[in-house]
Formats: sequence, structure tokens, C-alpha cells
Amino acid sequence: MSKILLKNATIVPLDDEDTIYERASLAIQDDRILAIGTIPSDFDPDDIIDLSGKIITPGLYNAHTHAAMVFARGYAEDMPLDRWFNEGIWRLESALTRDMVHWGIRLAMIEMIRGGVIGFADHYFYMDEVAEAVVESGMRANLAWAVFGHEGGEVGITVPETVDFVKRWDGAANGRLRALFGPHSPYLCSDQFLARTAAVAVREGIGIHIHAAETEEQVKASLLEHDMTPIELLHDRGLFETHTIVAHAIHVSPVDIALMAQSKVHVAHCPSTHLRYAMGVTPVPDMLNAGVNVALGTDGAGSSVALNLWREIRLAVVMQRQARRDPEALGGLTPLIMAARNGAQALGFHRSGKLRPGYQADLIVIDATQPHYHPIHSVSASLVWNTEPADVQDVMVAGRWLMRDRKLLTLDEAAILSGFHEALAEMMARPLGQFKKYDVG
Amino acid sequence: MSKILLKNATIVPLDDEDTIYERASLAIQDDRILAIGTIPSDFDPDDIIDLSGKIITPGLYNAHTHAAMVFARGYAEDMPLDRWFNEGIWRLESALTRDMVHWGIRLAMIEMIRGGVIGFADHYFYMDEVAEAVVESGMRANLAWAVFGHEGGEVGITVPETVDFVKRWDGAANGRLRALFGPHSPYLCSDQFLARTAAVAVREGIGIHIHAAETEEQVKASLLEHDMTPIELLHDRGLFETHTIVAHAIHVSPVDIALMAQSKVHVAHCPSTHLRYAMGVTPVPDMLNAGVNVALGTDGAGSSVALNLWREIRLAVVMQRQARRDPEALGGLTPLIMAARNGAQALGFHRSGKLRPGYQADLIVIDATQPHYHPIHSVSASLVWNTEPADVQDVMVAGRWLMRDRKLLTLDEAAILSGFHEALAEMMARPLGQFKKYDVG
Repeated sequence: MSKILLKNATIVPLDDEDTIYERASLAIQDDRILAIGTIPSDFDPDDIIDLSGKIITPGLYNAHTHAAMVFARGYAEDMPLDRWFNEGIWRLESALTRDMVHWGIRLAMIEMIRGGVIGFADHYFYMDEVAEAVVESGMRANLAWAVFGHEGGEVGITVPETVDFVKRWDGAANGRLRALFGPHSPYLCSDQFLARTAAVAVREGIGIHIHAAETEEQVKASLLEHDMTPIELLHDRGLFETHTIVAHAIHVSPVDIALMAQSKVHVAHCPSTHLRYAMGVTPVPDMLNAGVNVALGTDGAGSSVALNLWREIRLAVVMQRQARRDPEALGGLTPLIMAARNGAQALGFHRSGKLRPGYQADLIVIDATQPHYHPIHSVSASLVWNTEPADVQDVMVAGRWLMRDRKLLTLDEAAILSGFHEALAEMMARPLGQFKKYDVG
Repeated sequence: MSKILLKNATIVPLDDEDTIYERASLAIQDDRILAIGTIPSDFDPDDIIDLSGKIITPGLYNAHTHAAMVFARGYAEDMPLDRWFNEGIWRLESALTRDMVHWGIRLAMIEMIRGGVIGFADHYFYMDEVAEAVVESGMRANLAWAVFGHEGGEVGITVPETVDFVKRWDGAANGRLRALFGPHSPYLCSDQFLARTAAVAVREGIGIHIHAAETEEQVKASLLEHDMTPIELLHDRGLFETHTIVAHAIHVSPVDIALMAQSKVHVAHCPSTHLRYAMGVTPVPDMLNAGVNVALGTDGAGSSVALNLWREIRLAVVMQRQARRDPEALGGLTPLIMAARNGAQALGFHRSGKLRPGYQADLIVIDATQPHYHPIHSVSASLVWNTEPADVQDVMVAGRWLMRDRKLLTLDEAAILSGFHEALAEMMARPLGQFKKYDVG
């Protein structure tokens, strides 16, 4: 039995009372938090770590990404979304190799762990490669194999195959892995296919991770074809009858928001991508007020360039303040709660995302001794507005250190960079074709 | 004579042709750049530094800040600008001590140098303290002593005293220091005072650094009182007849922009503060198109929390893309050019801000070997969207290293942190009063 005592830290558990502990201790036993603040007198730790001047928070969750897409970092810049898809990313992805996913996912996990991200909701291809990489890294993940489904059948992977994929991985690695369905979107899957996916999902108790309502054009096209918004369509076809993550949900009506709230849908909001591609402003405060669980994602590095959740935390705030002319929007710890607590809920890790006795020991340590943290008048302001990935000193998932003092303990950086560049060279040497035409209808 | 050769670097000189040199060399002789790319065969360096995998760019300029205000970091969060002034910052500043400026400016310079900022336009109090600190640090700076001037006279410092201040420091430290007038703003100075300041400025050949057009209310009040916008008033009272930096300039008309362009006014755009306090969107693309020199600033840490110019670089882009629904706004290297080249021009360092033979050796080295830079499909995208302060490895001003391998060479971090906290404790023990009522009229 492993027992660790973290002491003298500022602890921000992200509980309902916005408690902040100063110079406090946190006791970890095996994979769980045993106590915070008052430590049982009979707790006899194997390891005592002094964290004076450091801040402990729950680890962050990246609620929507295509992690292996780091190969496309900065590939198609400064263009509208349709050109980004058709002339950029989908041409590049037509040359995707399984080997690229093998190395790309590992490079992405290096970047995420080094920035304090302990889990991610991934929506991509060759997802068995991703699952194996997650087992190795010690992170948590929620994995969806992307499917483009039409009447003629599915592209890439069939529904029965995704059922097998889910059964292979959901709950694996001591519960660090969740797996679910990944129908791409209502604009790239037929609604009959979506209905069929939803029926299987409900029957088998499988969740769904899907893109929707990214552009005004998608909403218009959906209204024309179905007389329903994309969100109404997903609801109508049964996709909200299970644990569902909707990525983006930018162009949504009050009715859409109410439907998502009553169906307990999880929204993954991705500020970097939405801002860089001028896609519009998700009404996050309205969603939170309505009771929708809104988490934060980076999307893939093809659109966000960086897998930096601290940036998403801040952009989530400033885009609302700009759009609403409201200097109080998403104040205090709200954006951090979205990234940690709401992320854990969205990904299906229900005993993670906050620090609490009995919960998983999923936490990060931030080195607030550095010059840019002085002084700290407000712990929440310093956490939200001063923290960059490089300030994350340690990362722990289920009681196991994935990074200590900026050194990764589960992944071999040099080997991964080398493997990544070999796979990228091979991929870039392949002919590029048309992968899939982006068409809002 | 000192001779340094930097070799095998990616060099982004920010020239007019957007040249990017790959695996190239840069030769430095004393305080200047001798050559880039092709190095004279008789150049015999004392020091040869291999920068494989690293990127050299011009150093960044922070074109508007109140640097010593780091003491107010995170002090008054999540409130409208008028409450931020009256209930927060100005109450705190009423207790300001000279000692606080002495230590605060040094802490701010640590944060700026560590983030690749080589010069800053500072607008604050006790500016002789700031000047002495800049001499010590090796940075460049453009210093304005803030004055609140009315008919009854000036608050804090008189015009003749600021003339003395300017004469004492402008051009000092081998030209690393510029000094100019700092009338606070048209809303906190009478227009007669502004006219008097402008007349002295023009007569003595002194520049001006002033705030203007931060809120719609300020514009309305100016129109009511003077039948002129704040920008028109500054122009009319003669403040544009010298080298003038206008901070903010958010709420400006096409006529205002034309006036600033024809008067060669420099605008300091501060995205973090504008976004956090929901102040509105400066029409930066229109200003750039009209020929206005728009540079980037962090404003004081009291409003921006961080003195992180990489954040301002990215926020400048995304706020325009959101406001204009234009995914191509401020693309490529544009925001970096604003931070470096335009900043150097705004601050009056005319042989800095780009890398070019004969120019000052003012540069930074970015460690692009780190995982989050892999791969680099686009050097400009990686620079703009991946770089955080911690990625800046080395900083050089006028041929002198201020930081090598993340170690500061001119400032003693531990001593400064200690002095800063002593001064802060003393300041926080003083009674808070009303410093100055913020009143848009």
C-alpha cells in the first residue's frame, strides 16, 4: 500500500464552496485521496513532499481533441473552415498511416502531461493504437473511433467493429479508459445512420462523442433538410438518450440549450479553434445557467496548433467578455472548474476533477514560486491568468506520478520525437488525395 | 571588440519580405548585427554558439505598461473598469511608496526578460527609480512620468519637473533609455493642461505617451464638452505634433484613424486588458491599413495579471477574428511584427525591432526543440501560436546577453523577490485612501 503526504501547499480542490487551503496537507493512499487539511494521526506516509509555495489543483481534462493530429500542427493557417478542411487537413489526412497515429498520440500526450492535462476525449482513427498508448502513459482517456456513416455503409470502420472496440477498452486500465461511439457529425453522417448508431448505443449502454452546430451554414442546411436544428436532430434521432459529448455546439438556440440541459448532454467548448477560424461564440454562460455541463477542449493541433488547456481556460473567459461586453463573465475559478470538474464529468470519470477524500488522486502541482506569480493577491486570479504549461511541476493520476519536477516518468521523450519524425516523413512522402469532401448539406 | 557567431538557427528577421533563413548564421560585432546568412570570411568570432533547432527573432517590445504595478497583480478582478479604478487600483495606489516602485520595476523586468521582452514603454510614478533600474538591467525603455494636470496645477509632478526628468534620461545608457511626457489622459487632464504640455513638448522636442478613447463613455463625454472625440481633441490641442504614443485608442472613428495616420501617431494596443474588462475592440486592421503604427502592450499587471507579450500577440489576432468574423485577420507574422518592429518604432528605437546588418543586436532565441514545437510546418504559425514565455532561452540587447539558458545575467532574482515582498508588506500596512476619482467627464 502506497502512502504519500503532500504538505505546506496551497490546495484548490475546486469544491462547491470554492475552498482554498493555505499551507495545507493532502494525504494519498494508493490511487485515492485519503484526506485534505486535517490528516489522520495514524497516517504513516512512505513519502513526504514539501510543496511550500506550490499550488495543488485537480488535473485538467481536454474534453475534445484529435490528439494524434499533432502531425498537422500549423499545416493550414489563416483560412476559412471549409478551405481548412478541403484544401488542408483532409488532403493531409488522406495519407494518414497507422504508424503516424502510434507516434502522434504519444507526442500529443507528452505535450498534454507537460501542461497539466491528465485525461482527454479523443475522436480519431486507429483508436486501438491510442488505447494502447494511454495504457502505457498512465493518463485517462475517453476514446471514440470516428465514423462517417451513410446509407451505403460506413467509411473506415463499421458499427459492429466500433462495438467491439468499445467492449475491448471501456473500463480497461483500472478504469482509466472509457470508450464510446464516434459518429462524426450530423453534416457528415446521414440521419438514418445516426438513428441506427443511437439505437445500438442505448441497447448496449455505450456513450457517444459527436461534432455539431459548428457553423451557421450547418444550422441552415439542417433546418432546410429536416426542419430541425442539428441539436434538435440529434435529440430526435435518440443520440441524447445515452452519455453524449457534443463538441462545439456554437450555433445553438435557447431550445437547443434546454434540450441539452434536460438530456444531460456534455458540451466540449474549444475556444482556440472557434476563435482562430472565426466560427462564432458558443453561449457558454447561458448553457451553464441552464445546467448544461460545459467542459473545455483544445480540438486537434491542426486547428489549435497547441494542446494547451491553460490557453483554452483564458480564451473561454475573454471571448465571452468580448461578445457580451460583460467584464464579470466566467469570473473567479469558473473556467478552471470547466476544465477540471466539468471535464471529468464529460469524460465519465465521476470520482475525479475535484480533490476530495475518496476521490481518485488525480492532481497537478503548479510552481507558483516563479517570478510571474508574485504577489498572489487572489489564488484564483493567479491560477487562471498566470499559469502556463511550463508552470506545471508535477502530474499525478490515480496516485501515480506521470511527471515529477518537469521530468516525464512514463513516456520516453527522445524516442517518441524520433519515431514521430520518421512516421511523419513516411506519411508526407505518400500522395495526397481527397479524403472526404466537407459539405454542409 | 566583441564578436559572436550564432549558427545553425532558424532566423526570422521580420523584414519586409517575410524572409525565413533555415540553418543560418548571424554575426554580431559589439552592439550591432554585422551579417545574417552570408558571414564575411574574415569574421573571427570570440564565441560561437550552435543554435540547432532554435529560432532567432527580434526581441519584443511592450508598448504600454505600468510595470511597477506588479504589486497589484490580481488585486481587483471580475469587475467593470470604473469599479476597478475607484474601488480597486486607485485605492491601492494611494499607498504607493517609492520603495515599491524600486522593487516592483525590477520584478516586472524579470518577468519581461524571461518572456523575451527587451524594451517597454512605461507610464508611472517615481520614474527616476525606473530609469535607474533599466540602466542596471540592460533593457531598453521609454519612460513617461504620469501627470494629472488641471487648471489648479499638476498632481504629483509639475511640467518643469518632467522636463528635467526627460533631459536627465532621454538618450542615456548608450541610447537604451528614451524619456518623454506622460499626461495621463484627456479624461483626467484638462484640455488647457494638455495644450500647455503639447506646446512645451514641441518646443523642447519631447515626445508624449498618453491614454485615450478607452470607453464609449469617454468619447460621449468628450463630444459633449468639446464637440470633438478624444483623438480629435488631442490632435487639436497639438499633442500629435511630436512623437506620440496613444495607449488603447479603442473607440475611434474613421476620422480619428485618419488623423492618427497623418500625424504618425503610435498606438499601443493592449488586448488582455481590453478583453478582461470588456472594453471593446480596437479596429486594428483598419489602423494598419491606414498606415497607423500599431504596437502591442500588456498594460499594468493590475489589469492584465501577466506581463506576457506572447499572450498579447495571440489575443490581438483572435479578438479581431471574433469581432470581424474573419479567419484571415492579422495572419502570418503580422502580430509578431506588431510586437517587435512596430514596438521598436513606437518606443523610438529606430534601429531595433528587426534583424538587419547595421541594426542593434536586439534579439531572442526560442527553444523550438521542445515537444510542443514538433513538427514545424510553418515557422510563423509555430512562433505565434506555440511560443510561451518559458520557451525563450536567451535574450540579447545591444550585443549583451541579459539571459542565457533561462538564467538572468543582470538581475538577482532572489534578492529582488525578497526586496519586493518587504516593500509590499510595508505598502499594504499603510492606510488606503482615495487616490483620484475616475470620472469620464
